[in-house]
Amino acid sequence: MSVVEGLTAETKRTVAGRFAGLRLGSGRPMIIAGPCSVESEEQIVAAARAVKAAGATALRGGAFKPRTSPRSFQGLGEEGLRLLAVARAETGLPVVTEVMDTAQIDLVAEYADVLQVGSRNMQNFALLKQVGRAGKPVLLKRGLSATLEEWLAAAEYILESGNDQVILCERGIRTFETSTRNTLDLSTAILARTRSGLPVIVDPSHAAGRRDLIEPLSLAALAAGMDGLMIEVHPDPDRALSDAAQQLNFEQFSRLMARLELLPASALESIDACREEIDRLDERILDLLLRRMAAARRVGQLKRGAGLPVLQEDREHALINRLAGLAGDELAGEEVREIWQAILAVSRRAQQALHA
Amino acid sequence: MSVVEGLTAETKRTVAGRFAGLRLGSGRPMIIAGPCSVESEEQIVAAARAVKAAGATALRGGAFKPRTSPRSFQGLGEEGLRLLAVARAETGLPVVTEVMDTAQIDLVAEYADVLQVGSRNMQNFALLKQVGRAGKPVLLKRGLSATLEEWLAAAEYILESGNDQVILCERGIRTFETSTRNTLDLSTAILARTRSGLPVIVDPSHAAGRRDLIEPLSLAALAAGMDGLMIEVHPDPDRALSDAAQQLNFEQFSRLMARLELLPASALESIDACREEIDRLDERILDLLLRRMAAARRVGQLKRGAGLPVLQEDREHALINRLAGLAGDELAGEEVREIWQAILAVSRRAQQALHA
Amino acid sequence: MSVVEGLTAETKRTVAGRFAGLRLGSGRPMIIAGPCSVESEEQIVAAARAVKAAGATALRGGAFKPRTSPRSFQGLGEEGLRLLAVARAETGLPVVTEVMDTAQIDLVAEYADVLQVGSRNMQNFALLKQVGRAGKPVLLKRGLSATLEEWLAAAEYILESGNDQVILCERGIRTFETSTRNTLDLSTAILARTRSGLPVIVDPSHAAGRRDLIEPLSLAALAAGMDGLMIEVHPDPDRALSDAAQQLNFEQFSRLMARLELLPASALESIDACREEIDRLDERILDLLLRRMAAARRVGQLKRGAGLPVLQEDREHALINRLAGLAGDELAGEEVREIWQAILAVSRRAQQALHA
Amino acid sequence: MSVVEGLTAETKRTVAGRFAGLRLGSGRPMIIAGPCSVESEEQIVAAARAVKAAGATALRGGAFKPRTSPRSFQGLGEEGLRLLAVARAETGLPVVTEVMDTAQIDLVAEYADVLQVGSRNMQNFALLKQVGRAGKPVLLKRGLSATLEEWLAAAEYILESGNDQVILCERGIRTFETSTRNTLDLSTAILARTRSGLPVIVDPSHAAGRRDLIEPLSLAALAAGMDGLMIEVHPDPDRALSDAAQQLNFEQFSRLMARLELLPASALESIDACREEIDRLDERILDLLLRRMAAARRVGQLKRGAGLPVLQEDREHALINRLAGLAGDELAGEEVREIWQAILAVSRRAQQALHA
Repeated sequence: MSVVEGLTAETKRTVAGRFAGLRLGSGRPMIIAGPCSVESEEQIVAAARAVKAAGATALRGGAFKPRTSPRSFQGLGEEGLRLLAVARAETGLPVVTEVMDTAQIDLVAEYADVLQVGSRNMQNFALLKQVGRAGKPVLLKRGLSATLEEWLAAAEYILESGNDQVILCERGIRTFETSTRNTLDLSTAILARTRSGLPVIVDPSHAAGRRDLIEPLSLAALAAGMDGLMIEVHPDPDRALSDAAQQLNFEQFSRLMARLELLPASALESIDACREEIDRLDERILDLLLRRMAAARRVGQLKRGAGLPVLQEDREHALINRLAGLAGDELAGEEVREIWQAILAVSRRAQQALHA
Repeated sequence: MSVVEGLTAETKRTVAGRFAGLRLGSGRPMIIAGPCSVESEEQIVAAARAVKAAGATALRGGAFKPRTSPRSFQGLGEEGLRLLAVARAETGLPVVTEVMDTAQIDLVAEYADVLQVGSRNMQNFALLKQVGRAGKPVLLKRGLSATLEEWLAAAEYILESGNDQVILCERGIRTFETSTRNTLDLSTAILARTRSGLPVIVDPSHAAGRRDLIEPLSLAALAAGMDGLMIEVHPDPDRALSDAAQQLNFEQFSRLMARLELLPASALESIDACREEIDRLDERILDLLLRRMAAARRVGQLKRGAGLPVLQEDREHALINRLAGLAGDELAGEEVREIWQAILAVSRRAQQALHA
Repeated sequence: MSVVEGLTAETKRTVAGRFAGLRLGSGRPMIIAGPCSVESEEQIVAAARAVKAAGATALRGGAFKPRTSPRSFQGLGEEGLRLLAVARAETGLPVVTEVMDTAQIDLVAEYADVLQVGSRNMQNFALLKQVGRAGKPVLLKRGLSATLEEWLAAAEYILESGNDQVILCERGIRTFETSTRNTLDLSTAILARTRSGLPVIVDPSHAAGRRDLIEPLSLAALAAGMDGLMIEVHPDPDRALSDAAQQLNFEQFSRLMARLELLPASALESIDACREEIDRLDERILDLLLRRMAAARRVGQLKRGAGLPVLQEDREHALINRLAGLAGDELAGEEVREIWQAILAVSRRAQQALHA
Repeated sequence: MSVVEGLTAETKRTVAGRFAGLRLGSGRPMIIAGPCSVESEEQIVAAARAVKAAGATALRGGAFKPRTSPRSFQGLGEEGLRLLAVARAETGLPVVTEVMDTAQIDLVAEYADVLQVGSRNMQNFALLKQVGRAGKPVLLKRGLSATLEEWLAAAEYILESGNDQVILCERGIRTFETSTRNTLDLSTAILARTRSGLPVIVDPSHAAGRRDLIEPLSLAALAAGMDGLMIEVHPDPDRALSDAAQQLNFEQFSRLMARLELLPASALESIDACREEIDRLDERILDLLLRRMAAARRVGQLKRGAGLPVLQEDREHALINRLAGLAGDELAGEEVREIWQAILAVSRRAQQALHA
């Protein structure tokens, strides 16, 4: 049995344990955000602050850049790593950055919290055999035309070296379609997660190669159960030294996080913004209450059919206690109770009307 | 300017108008469900009833089947069309079925509510030129290796014939990956919708070719804003005459609709099932209330910073009135008011605590 | 066992019998040449004459054109068919043209010698079921993303209708590569031929979509054993109503045929052109004579090792008689004898030198 | 202007100069043959001797193997390199072997004559930047889904490091077709050669992944003008530790070389084999003579039209002298003269017959 298959049954709790510090397995998606390339201290620190404020859980930024042409910007190298460490010190965000060669592993591991193996190196087997030895989590991007089997086999090279902290990242595959840079393959990302038991995140920036698709693809990825996203964010995308067309600016990233319901309330900058958010939440709560009422009426019908009484105090008690137990910092158990008493009162009357 | 581009600016209301009877543009996704092939009256009527009960909005079923090999089941032909009409009479569901040749258009249009042009015929230009003339909506599936441009150009053939009731359907493209039958290309589906202004639905059954991916891909498609889904459902998939591996049975379809929050309360068959649903809804309502409290506290902070009072009765009134206006059959305006008074009371106390 | 597999063992003689009039199975490749679209009588007659003079064995030309966009030139329709018949009358070349819909079969069959089913209709099963019934050979192009299995299964639809005169045509598949219009897949063309026993030709014009690749790809296809080529040739490619970038003009086609060693001597228009051709042939004959001498010397070595005499008159007689039997219209048996006596004399001396 | 574009105009002579010892640019294709992996001294020496005898110009064999799974045979490493050097000492064949990591460059360069960068490392930019520094020719395989542009850009990384001895190798790309391991893309190989001015060879073993396609694809590649082939040959393919299905045994390789007209006469092992070869050559010489006669008759026609005499002694002299000058070791100038006098005599009589 392969190592990857052996991991399949592992629980989310184990994931959480393995990736301490990255919030993986916490039930909340991991959001890795930052510029394609580290360009200057000002740029990377500004980006780190902005993505942290908008709810990102890790910072990305390339110091060693794999570029198709030798004439393209190749990254700042070790200086870039140093600047990433500065940005981490400023924000507390763990740093994810790429390592391109066995000779760079020690250096990159000195600065980074997660070592990324890029798409073009997914089958750089010498690198796969050694990258895990630094003892840090490894983010393994899927190759541009790698099959599921090959991707999992590449992960096994790392796992076999004794490091089980592997995060998989789907970033689009190569197809005949030219309206997007690559084609996001959610299906294989889902299967990779089921098959391996490893966390799988999605990179819509590289998959689409165009800003306008990042929001819908991010929504799709999280809805499909992916463990997180990797998003390119730059203070001024049009002036970026690489991947200009696909990077978001700070405001766009903030809006994306709001749409994903991951923007912290602290990032709402005006009373109006708060009220918009509250109005949006109220509409969604109302939707759910409508569905709740329909289900409650259905209970009423079924009870009447079975000759059972409407009020079942035990059930109501248990229900409220359970919810009160789930309430966290933002809402005391007593407050939960107060709100649900109103909800249950309305619901009970609806059932009684049926029996009348 | 091409016809397709001209449609881009059209509003959802127009879509709704054009597709009267299909609930498109209603804000609720169109769910087309049913077996791959019509096999018998018993089979198609049972399937129609089951998918209707679970919330489907249209019935699919193939009478003329495009099969790779001449040795495979080719469909019941006109008899299949007649059986689809029987199923429609039983359930009221509009019928979607494929037309494969110009010579069949009149016959199929006699029985069907929506004429489907299959992937393999996406560039059967003779068919495209004539299929719209029946005056019924046309569902145009994307070809297995069609680019976005080609798909939209195929739609134009139909639009040019004077029929603007075109629904696009993404059903997976051909790539090197072999763990799925095809690769669902959500990115292009999203762009097709933006570019054309036409409704776009997704067929995860053909895209994945395997049952276990239908739920996550359906969640993803709707999260990405697609207008609906086409799902293969069969009373006994293992005995289906075509596409056995990818069809859902009735229970699986019902579970899918529950996960999509599209299952009507009437489909909950026991008090226990209702309670599970209520518990699930309560948890999600609680999540949203926690986010609502965080936003309310943030309002409190900002008000304090600006020296404004906590209580702003106007705002509370307006808020409650707006929600009461949105309440529908399931919840009277008065009941909405009752619940939100509880919510606002809790929220107000939290803000006051900040000011204390 | 499928029909296609059943044909695998058929001999070339059977192919020749089945496709009477098309020179298939004659050992000489079938060359179908002509414009993408029939545009006028002048254009198609000029093209027919030019390709005939350069050695083409059939004329192509589209009357019904499958065009991606409804705004592109759609072909002259029946008028185009009539013009093709005029060109045939002028040149004697059999005519190959596309049929796009079941409703056109009778009309096209009235004018054409070979009915073409285009890539986009490779899985138009209604068409496949009926196109063979006209009793004329059918040229079935591979779909842009059809697998070998699907292509052969499509051929079976035609074979099953009782018509065994099916010619397969590989015309490039869709891949991620953008420097060519499609990617010529010679490997699958070769396998299609072995698997089906049907003749397989190659269309480098559509595969490459660019003039500069037509010659090397044609050379490659014939070297790989393909049964023929389909080449787009237009009097004035830059003014063509379709596929301008990939059509050859008459002179380019003539040069191509020369490179393929298929240009008739009658097409050499000056003494200089003839001499160039003779010089080229002489160089190749010399190359082969050098190899022949090396093999003859090797015989000498082996004979010496085995103690056998150099001269074996029986062998020389038999050899010359066999070649004299193969000589055709261009060289009498006596002349063959005269030339080979010179060759054998030189060869014998070389062997004797070894024994000296 | 990029380095690659700058090379476009270079002549074959320059190629020959750059790749001294590899016979590139000699007008004769480079044939690199040998096992997928070096497995033992016995195996690699046997393979080297067999491929040398059959006309190969270089020996391949993997010491460091890029394998999809960590559980597959990973190669003998340095021991494999040592064995390759033994095989070179035995046969004089230059050795081509893969280097997978920057840390291995010096070691591999110590033993190998050509350093191979494999498909999976085509965008291992750290390796590309350093592999050229060893001063040995570099064979750069195209990535499994690399575009032409990316392949040439990868070559530029090597050229930019100051090493212009780069050989490109097309080895099949990834498509949806499953009947072959990959899809040989001759079109892009041809364009790569034209665009870069670098020699391009083809690897049909990896492209097809099946023995039966190696011969037709090799014929096609050379007919299309490629500079050479890389072929996997193993003493006992069924027992090979890697790539069993695609390796040829010695006899199959020998037959392949015969079909390519590259088998030396010294490899013909019996008088019968020599005679088969001679018969085959005679048939081809006869074919060419028939074409020569047709051209000569055409000269006769044109001369008659222009009122010129048949015999033009100057032309005949010049022709024979030119060919006598091209004759090499195998045929003396005098012998060439003797044979062509016979050919010209026959030809002259044919022309005279026209004038009679």
